[in-house]
Amino acid sequence: MKYPSSLVALIRELSRLPGIGPKSAQRLAFYLFEQPREDIERLAGSLLDAKRELHTCPVCFNITDAELCDVCADPTRMQNLICVVEEPGDVIAIEKSGEYTGLYHVLHGVLSPMNGVGPDKLQLRPLLPRLQSGIEVILATGTTVEGEATAMYVQRLIEPLGVMVSRIAYGLPVGGALEYADEVTLGRALSGRQRVSK
Amino acid sequence: MKYPSSLVALIRELSRLPGIGPKSAQRLAFYLFEQPREDIERLAGSLLDAKRELHTCPVCFNITDAELCDVCADPTRMQNLICVVEEPGDVIAIEKSGEYTGLYHVLHGVLSPMNGVGPDKLQLRPLLPRLQSGIEVILATGTTVEGEATAMYVQRLIEPLGVMVSRIAYGLPVGGALEYADEVTLGRALSGRQRVSK
Repeated sequence: MKYPSSLVALIRELSRLPGIGPKSAQRLAFYLFEQPREDIERLAGSLLDAKRELHTCPVCFNITDAELCDVCADPTRMQNLICVVEEPGDVIAIEKSGEYTGLYHVLHGVLSPMNGVGPDKLQLRPLLPRLQSGIEVILATGTTVEGEATAMYVQRLIEPLGVMVSRIAYGLPVGGALEYADEVTLGRALSGRQRVSK
Repeated sequence: MKYPSSLVALIRELSRLPGIGPKSAQRLAFYLFEQPREDIERLAGSLLDAKRELHTCPVCFNITDAELCDVCADPTRMQNLICVVEEPGDVIAIEKSGEYTGLYHVLHGVLSPMNGVGPDKLQLRPLLPRLQSGIEVILATGTTVEGEATAMYVQRLIEPLGVMVSRIAYGLPVGGALEYADEVTLGRALSGRQRVSK
């Protein structure tokens, strides 16, 4: 039996998504086949809309559909605090904790020489012009090996510029990714941050 | 911080898919954001193409993009064997086994009175005109409670029509160690033993 080509194509596309193997992709495809046409069109439309409307904020590289992201555009946020995170999802996780009122800087990745990710692949250079004296930079990359290495790299890079650098506290379980932490733990980790610069 | 509406919409649509919770949907959305536009368009296109081109075979209710499905359109398949399964994915699973050369009938569900699924919600009525004398019907619904009830219902429905009805064999999965099998499976495997000596 030959499978219909549009079914094969759909299963192939779905199985490219992270965490979805060939079996899950097949199950998803059959599930989608049973859904009404409007639902499929809404799903496809939301994919295209998101891709068309979303971009990164030119200041902090958070995801936004406006010129500046909501945080950068808000003058009531503390302008002398910049929290450096790996991914846009980390911003959402920290915002949910309600403990933080400063700005962000999203690196869009971590240093990972094994996977060919060096400093040039991260949004690291645009951080430098944001660093004036009196600013505190909170390094909130994950407590994975790559997250630690990235935090250390950023620290060494920006310390000579005379900014205060801190690292979120080990309230996080070691080895855990930031976006999986619960709000309370994340809040504690932020308020218990330790100064690492001299 | 307010999230961009197209991001919220995408996360909402993704979290409707089976097996994808709010956290996975958020992670998927951020992953998709990082992908090139062509990839997103291909994914969205494959969803729309599949929905437009695929339909059920009017004879056996398998998924197809042609007038008849590949199995029904193949005159070399044994025309006196009809294997009744729950879902189109079961056809693919059985075809992969390479052990079956007959026809199929896809019910598109199982009887589940608790969830309001009665016989009328299944593609059961179109099975009846296919049953001429000399035909064997293999009931290959799952070995869940609902699958068993459905098999029993179909058996009682079609037995009076003079067809031969069989149920796929219960037993140990190939490659499975005896000590890991549950008692019920082991009991069925014993009572369904096959003579191997001459």
